Amino acid sequence: MITISAYNWVPDFAKGFVRDLRVRWALEEAGLDYTVKLIDQDEKLTPAYRAWQPFCQVPAYRDDEVTLFESGAILLHVAQRSEALLPADPAERARAVAWVFAALNSIEIYVEPLAVIDLFHAGEDWAKQRCPQVEQAVRKRLADLAAALGDRPYLEGRFTVGDLMMATVLRILQDTDLVTSDPVLGPYLARCVGRPPFQKALAAQLTSLQAAPASAAAR
Amino acid sequence: MITISAYNWVPDFAKGFVRDLRVRWALEEAGLDYTVKLIDQDEKLTPAYRAWQPFCQVPAYRDDEVTLFESGAILLHVAQRSEALLPADPAERARAVAWVFAALNSIEIYVEPLAVIDLFHAGEDWAKQRCPQVEQAVRKRLADLAAALGDRPYLEGRFTVGDLMMATVLRILQDTDLVTSDPVLGPYLARCVGRPPFQKALAAQLTSLQAAPASAAAR
Repeated sequence: MITISAYNWVPDFAKGFVRDLRVRWALEEAGLDYTVKLIDQDEKLTPAYRAWQPFCQVPAYRDDEVTLFESGAILLHVAQRSEALLPADPAERARAVAWVFAALNSIEIYVEPLAVIDLFHAGEDWAKQRCPQVEQAVRKRLADLAAALGDRPYLEGRFTVGDLMMATVLRILQDTDLVTSDPVLGPYLARCVGRPPFQKALAAQLTSLQAAPASAAAR
Repeated sequence: MITISAYNWVPDFAKGFVRDLRVRWALEEAGLDYTVKLIDQDEKLTPAYRAWQPFCQVPAYRDDEVTLFESGAILLHVAQRSEALLPADPAERARAVAWVFAALNSIEIYVEPLAVIDLFHAGEDWAKQRCPQVEQAVRKRLADLAAALGDRPYLEGRFTVGDLMMATVLRILQDTDLVTSDPVLGPYLARCVGRPPFQKALAAQLTSLQAAPASAAAR
């Protein structure tokens, strides 16, 4: 049986964006059942949870074979079980894996600083000075990505785990027009998140986040 | 035959830190021969190179089976060919892969903004305001990593591709005392980079970086 960890509460801005969404989506695409171990903001700091997830975050993952952390690693593990996420051909599989890494390390590594400014530091003096440079770096990476995608529906033609990861990273920018205004990336993101398995995963995360007692939100 | 791309010139601060080092190190650990396609700062922007590496960076990789980009994806592909980098046991393999992702997405994503400040923006007003927060975030992640490592020589006991990637990320901090002063991570990094395959890879990168004509450095 597959078990993943997820929070029972997060601040409003994070709802629908916590990284267990990536794993839930992959499991839905693969048609694999799973159970959720809900944790709160205290439990994530316990030795028992740290042994499962060394950085005290979600998601962590467990099945009959492995105990894992890092959404990227969990996605690859799940993807290896299903041709819905990874093609059978070894060369095509490797390309799909490349896009998983590209999403995390060539796109998210630029997107994250912009999200941090927008969410936590908007209006601060340093952020006003720095933001244009950060946004310019994001624009450059998105232009590279759009050029690579071209007129294909997905990054390697058919949907893979690489598109799944890329879409979750592009969604971080959804309160800006950086993706939505792009004639290539806007429809691409809409195509990815329009998939029924994404919608099911999103609904499941939002349900989990309603599990906390009211006292949790008051802290 | 395996071919990787690498630069023939970079600024001094980047020498010994360009990401083809990760791939060279993995190939040395695996005992696999390779040739290097040297490119300059103009060639990386050509359509031909972009088709190989969509973000116009190094390394890109090609063998008889696959054409790949992203150092993480290349490392996993190489590692699958050698038990020197990945254990045979599926659960142990998955754990090693988790550390590759942790290096890139739980550590480097915090380390990179600090390196960007130190290398490109030291002394700027915004950087002076922001730097303490960035450094605090790095310290927290390094503490989590040190706790996970504990008294083991490597992250999962024996050396894997996860340690290889982690060491290349920790090296980014080597001009600070954040890693070297840590009683767990300092010796860990020294242990990783003391491996002969790392030293051989480092020497090979430095040799490639002397290949440019003098005019390249003057631009």
